Amino acid sequence: MKKIMNAADTLVEDMLAGYVSAEHDRVAISKEHPRVLYKKQKKTGKVGIVSGGGSGHEPLFFGLLGENLVDSVAIGNLFAAPTPNAVLAAIKEADQGAGVICLFGNYAGDVLNFDMGVELADFEEITALNLPIADDVASADQRHQSERRGIAGDLFVLKEVAAAAAKGYSLEACYQIGLAANSRTFSLGVGIEPGTNPINGKKNFELAANEIEFGLGIHGEPGIEKMPLVSAHKLVGKMMARLLLELQDYAEQELLVCVNGLGATTMMELYIVNKEVSQLLQQAGYHVSDTVVDSICTTQEMAGFSITLHVLNEELKELYQMEAFSSCYFHKEVDQ
Amino acid sequence: MKKIMNAADTLVEDMLAGYVSAEHDRVAISKEHPRVLYKKQKKTGKVGIVSGGGSGHEPLFFGLLGENLVDSVAIGNLFAAPTPNAVLAAIKEADQGAGVICLFGNYAGDVLNFDMGVELADFEEITALNLPIADDVASADQRHQSERRGIAGDLFVLKEVAAAAAKGYSLEACYQIGLAANSRTFSLGVGIEPGTNPINGKKNFELAANEIEFGLGIHGEPGIEKMPLVSAHKLVGKMMARLLLELQDYAEQELLVCVNGLGATTMMELYIVNKEVSQLLQQAGYHVSDTVVDSICTTQEMAGFSITLHVLNEELKELYQMEAFSSCYFHKEVDQ
Repeated sequence: MKKIMNAADTLVEDMLAGYVSAEHDRVAISKEHPRVLYKKQKKTGKVGIVSGGGSGHEPLFFGLLGENLVDSVAIGNLFAAPTPNAVLAAIKEADQGAGVICLFGNYAGDVLNFDMGVELADFEEITALNLPIADDVASADQRHQSERRGIAGDLFVLKEVAAAAAKGYSLEACYQIGLAANSRTFSLGVGIEPGTNPINGKKNFELAANEIEFGLGIHGEPGIEKMPLVSAHKLVGKMMARLLLELQDYAEQELLVCVNGLGATTMMELYIVNKEVSQLLQQAGYHVSDTVVDSICTTQEMAGFSITLHVLNEELKELYQMEAFSSCYFHKEVDQ
Repeated sequence: MKKIMNAADTLVEDMLAGYVSAEHDRVAISKEHPRVLYKKQKKTGKVGIVSGGGSGHEPLFFGLLGENLVDSVAIGNLFAAPTPNAVLAAIKEADQGAGVICLFGNYAGDVLNFDMGVELADFEEITALNLPIADDVASADQRHQSERRGIAGDLFVLKEVAAAAAKGYSLEACYQIGLAANSRTFSLGVGIEPGTNPINGKKNFELAANEIEFGLGIHGEPGIEKMPLVSAHKLVGKMMARLLLELQDYAEQELLVCVNGLGATTMMELYIVNKEVSQLLQQAGYHVSDTVVDSICTTQEMAGFSITLHVLNEELKELYQMEAFSSCYFHKEVDQ
């Protein structure tokens, strides 16, 4: 294994120190908990937005700390959920008197610890609600949508809920936006090459020389099938056929698209994927309102990508259009 | 080789189509030349900013098309300079009546073709000036600074020249800003694992299992020495010792820093690197005005990183502070 690091036992703290050094005008480490970062921007009495999860998926989640985005994050060990105490501290940092929503990927460990963090916050008379994001269509079928894992679709759900909070929506209204956004977000990924755990040096899955895993999870969870690597055209066609099934129940034809790299996949490849995605969506009669092509939800130097489709409605579209800025993502309306 | 692509002969066009699909509200492909992209934002009579270079280093260069950044880019084949005709077309797209500056990495092929492009523009009565960026301290010593290769330091030079243009500086004044910015930009990279050429499947260099290349160029050009992979602390210490030598001639103590990933290196590692960089700069008495940690100047899925130090003065600082937005980079002052 070739990783640029110091020691396994300082891995997460070294990373956070380097991130906060780079972003010290915007973010700081909480005095309440060393695994909690918060946005320094002045508090305005809005609903607080917490995110978080295991380390190793950078720039998520702390990369979304920012203006009209996330207020604080709770950070776990490598590929492990943040502790309930870290969740509590993040809730306290985000609290501005109007309640707090915690948005995170739907994994058993995260759900358990965020639930405990919310209970601890209740003792301190802060109302917090959990909203586990569940967008990976490979992980459960349509009847069990809420059991799906959370992958790159986190971005759109977080963006819209955070915009609702910034616009002064109530806690309940923000939560309803989150439920709506989450239920309209569909992702599917493929794994091309494994990533390496920087602590134990192990690869997170195994594939043969010309083989890929269709539907692979972000931690290397098994997908739907192993298959040979085919052209971008064929591969994206197969992925989109599965994703478009999820859109059949919606009258709306306006989408957000994210092509997310899992780590080592090049921007060249991600743009080639997006060419295929946008052509297929155009042929199917959809209008793409915005497209994000980047590596935001990663697992170390794993190669592969996911495609996320998010079905807008009028309210979600207006929320998405709000300007937002963080270290890894920004949204700004175009001046023309 | 596992690359997500269609065919070698459509590699660049597929990528550009996917990029323009994602950014169609901001950028378009020139009608004059299929390898030229331009920013759609209204022209304002300012000095035009052109950039460009070979494909395979994404998100550079087209990723910097944007507000107060680059107006047009000329794009070459994989790892090959854009043609003189592409450079000419890019100059024509960027021209707003006040002259054009072309900024690109200092490589023989790029210099040759940009020089020819500028000559062709002269026939069409557009004044264009070339400014090859030369920041890689491993590629030539201080007495031959202008012979250095251009790597991730491109970002700061481009940002400042583009801000000068946006503020209405004359062609000559923009050019002088570019010379000053370029002479104050110092980068050093290390290669950890090779990248793969997506056309012929070849790795761009060879390294043993625990070996790294100190001073490696962005195309895999040999560096200063091969050495074992050591801790981030030791490695960054060695790199910074070399970079700080370059800063001795400057009275100013205020810097911009870029920690640039070369492709497959994780954000976790880049932030760990930045922790070491920021501690060493603090110890040495420097003030870091802004830090960019990202993978902006890459070579496919090559692993490794570079550190760039850029010495500000009052004028460059004011230019750097101007807001700027593109698909891969933004600069926004913090509201607090």
